[in-house]
Amino acid sequence: MKMDLNSDLGESFSAWRMGDDAAMLGIVSSANVACGFHAGDAVGILRTLRHAKENGVVVGAHVAYNDLPGFGRRNIDVESAELVADVIYQIGALQGLAKAAGTSVRYVKPHGALYNTIAHDARQAKDVITAIHEIDPSLVLVALAGSPLIQWARDAGLRVVAEAFADRAYTPQGALVSRREKGAVLHDEQLIADRMLRLVREGTLEAVDGSTVRIEADSICVHGDSPGAVSIARQLRARFEREGVTIASFAG
Amino acid sequence: MKMDLNSDLGESFSAWRMGDDAAMLGIVSSANVACGFHAGDAVGILRTLRHAKENGVVVGAHVAYNDLPGFGRRNIDVESAELVADVIYQIGALQGLAKAAGTSVRYVKPHGALYNTIAHDARQAKDVITAIHEIDPSLVLVALAGSPLIQWARDAGLRVVAEAFADRAYTPQGALVSRREKGAVLHDEQLIADRMLRLVREGTLEAVDGSTVRIEADSICVHGDSPGAVSIARQLRARFEREGVTIASFAG
Amino acid sequence: MKMDLNSDLGESFSAWRMGDDAAMLGIVSSANVACGFHAGDAVGILRTLRHAKENGVVVGAHVAYNDLPGFGRRNIDVESAELVADVIYQIGALQGLAKAAGTSVRYVKPHGALYNTIAHDARQAKDVITAIHEIDPSLVLVALAGSPLIQWARDAGLRVVAEAFADRAYTPQGALVSRREKGAVLHDEQLIADRMLRLVREGTLEAVDGSTVRIEADSICVHGDSPGAVSIARQLRARFEREGVTIASFAG
Amino acid sequence: MKMDLNSDLGESFSAWRMGDDAAMLGIVSSANVACGFHAGDAVGILRTLRHAKENGVVVGAHVAYNDLPGFGRRNIDVESAELVADVIYQIGALQGLAKAAGTSVRYVKPHGALYNTIAHDARQAKDVITAIHEIDPSLVLVALAGSPLIQWARDAGLRVVAEAFADRAYTPQGALVSRREKGAVLHDEQLIADRMLRLVREGTLEAVDGSTVRIEADSICVHGDSPGAVSIARQLRARFEREGVTIASFAG
Repeated sequence: MKMDLNSDLGESFSAWRMGDDAAMLGIVSSANVACGFHAGDAVGILRTLRHAKENGVVVGAHVAYNDLPGFGRRNIDVESAELVADVIYQIGALQGLAKAAGTSVRYVKPHGALYNTIAHDARQAKDVITAIHEIDPSLVLVALAGSPLIQWARDAGLRVVAEAFADRAYTPQGALVSRREKGAVLHDEQLIADRMLRLVREGTLEAVDGSTVRIEADSICVHGDSPGAVSIARQLRARFEREGVTIASFAG
Repeated sequence: MKMDLNSDLGESFSAWRMGDDAAMLGIVSSANVACGFHAGDAVGILRTLRHAKENGVVVGAHVAYNDLPGFGRRNIDVESAELVADVIYQIGALQGLAKAAGTSVRYVKPHGALYNTIAHDARQAKDVITAIHEIDPSLVLVALAGSPLIQWARDAGLRVVAEAFADRAYTPQGALVSRREKGAVLHDEQLIADRMLRLVREGTLEAVDGSTVRIEADSICVHGDSPGAVSIARQLRARFEREGVTIASFAG
Repeated sequence: MKMDLNSDLGESFSAWRMGDDAAMLGIVSSANVACGFHAGDAVGILRTLRHAKENGVVVGAHVAYNDLPGFGRRNIDVESAELVADVIYQIGALQGLAKAAGTSVRYVKPHGALYNTIAHDARQAKDVITAIHEIDPSLVLVALAGSPLIQWARDAGLRVVAEAFADRAYTPQGALVSRREKGAVLHDEQLIADRMLRLVREGTLEAVDGSTVRIEADSICVHGDSPGAVSIARQLRARFEREGVTIASFAG
Repeated sequence: MKMDLNSDLGESFSAWRMGDDAAMLGIVSSANVACGFHAGDAVGILRTLRHAKENGVVVGAHVAYNDLPGFGRRNIDVESAELVADVIYQIGALQGLAKAAGTSVRYVKPHGALYNTIAHDARQAKDVITAIHEIDPSLVLVALAGSPLIQWARDAGLRVVAEAFADRAYTPQGALVSRREKGAVLHDEQLIADRMLRLVREGTLEAVDGSTVRIEADSICVHGDSPGAVSIARQLRARFEREGVTIASFAG
């Protein structure tokens, strides 16, 4: 049994700190590194990339809408030519910094509103796929498990990895419960580890209504933006290790 | 006889247009393409790179301080770690877009305040040199003719190209006359072509005091930010062609 | 007979110029001045405000989404608390600069995507209305003629001015023909002046299908972002003057 | 005996938090509120202003260079017309938000590199003074105790308040020991409270060499960007209260 753990890193900016990159790089196998459009500045990104290299953590480009004031969380109605170019620009910038850090970019995981939009919006999904094709078609795309994006990207010839979220509740249809609803975010370390172990072993989760939902995922996203989140991730890794689940990147 | 003509391109941003890139790409052999820090957005940069590719024009990274509100023209006291990372980020972003456009980045020409600062400031010069070494040591550095930067970069193992300015007056010591002084910028197409032809043939120019000054330059910078500037560049190219000077990139 | 002519001004930014503010300030009675969120920097805005003061032109705040890379033309799904605060911030900044220029802000005209969105979106419309109430309820709101925003703002106690566009075609229902459709933008100076004169005299326009549509407008928006646009505006003013239409701000 | 305590607040931005504004607003008498140029976004600034109002804390504009990526800590060689307009813009924006919060801006305290530069640079000092005169000459300027700025601003007709730093060491000449030197920043709560009490009572401090230095200050700056800093500020306030020093704004 094998599973990838990924986390959003490199999100500090200017004098503002976010997350505990050093801690998370000792836990995850894949680092989604900010590219400067929703978070991250060059010097901080480079530092995170060097630590990822030292920790043997695989690096991906956490591309986003060009929206620092909104942290990439606001839907923006961006034209295709712009979105394609913005994604290429971000991947290129991260590739440059990765080269300086002695590592390389292996995958692309869109961030925030872009992630959610392309999971279901065919036009913007196509733009992101086009961008990856134009800069490096060997890059893996990390996409929401169960979303139509997965097939769209595979049809376009990309390698795709489906992703589940460790701390999120799922609907009986396999979608994420909206953050606006109660119980959408899980906080119980034990429960989260139990659920993720079941996901690895059986490919299923218990949905919010108690039913069993099938989730095919090759990577699990864990967060590191609070001490509680880091602890959840650490316990999940420890549990996986005790239960014989190898934690390794899909791109390793 | 052979000479490179370079110009600053890709400097449009958002709804703002700057320069006549289409016209200039029919005149120059090297395009200094903005990287988004002083000017340029990804979609506009990509468009300029595609036109450069179509016109057989060699592409360089026009890296700058992170200063859109100041168009990269203000001196900023940036720390070394930041400057190194900022320069790598910009080159990487341009490399990514260049790959999408079917071309590649061959050289680096710093812009505005960064250009002027590193011509004489050893610390920031070293930072830019370090950045080039870390991302791609085969990139050529374009530097102000006669400046100490040339030797610093050569000592560090970089290939350097010295640059003269077609429309600028020179001091008897070979420095540019400050823009604050009268006569610093030349506007006479005929005079400019005469001067540049002499530069190519003899390696000299007439300084502001009438004396002869030696300028060793492998590239001449022409501007395209006004119809008058485009016309000066076009006349210079035509004159060079009539007089048997081959216009070709140093990196061709 | 009396009519206000307004235009978008102060939209230059950094080294980028946009529009011919000097020319337009000799034509219009109201200047919609950029506030720095979609365009404009403080030094350029202040210059435009001083010229507006010299020309006796009334000043309004051209507030926008916080989106310099998109020039405020992209829809952004901004939360209410943010939108309210962003609008107050922009009006306040312009009030400060207006005071320094010896004038004052008299009205608010949202820009681009925000303008179009609040014309029909009740939630964001309410946010803009709230912002105006919180900073200065005596500010007039300029709104798209025929849009529900007009009544929403009046119900909330604001003074509202309805606006028509000189160079745009209208549907039989009184809406603007989308820019994506042929014939949406008019270019014939004579035709535009004829239409606007009819608007002033009869409160009607000929719609794209040849029918007559009723448009109640107290202000006409003219553009100045190209020599052709400036000429249209100049001819319109001249025609109004010849025909006895007084050009004066609604807030004069 | 009476003393003002001031602190830098409103410095969160987008998804990034900075400082514990709620805690500090229970300690200080004056809040230097960020204006969006080095830190702060409109919605966060407005929240801080509302809390300041609720706590009876006086509000000042913490104006800065236009430098979000550098948090306003980098020297920028900005032209006078730009600096004047930038400062007016920031004060105006804060005035607008303050009005919405039911309070008003009473003073101006420049931030970071701008603060340090104008303490000694006559040209930029004049620009800031000009800006204050143009928007509201009744605003108090908070300036580094012992700096020439104090007299420049008084000569120009401004009311000036001199400021000391609770957690900084001083040279025998009354200047701040550079942060690059050992011992520049103090961390001992007891020592800091002792020193500030002496400052209030005698107008003197012990300099780094053990000598006594005269510091005339009407306000003391305390920091709140870490739990340790908040604790220092809280202990200082408690000590002042025990010793009969009234904590009240100079502008109260």
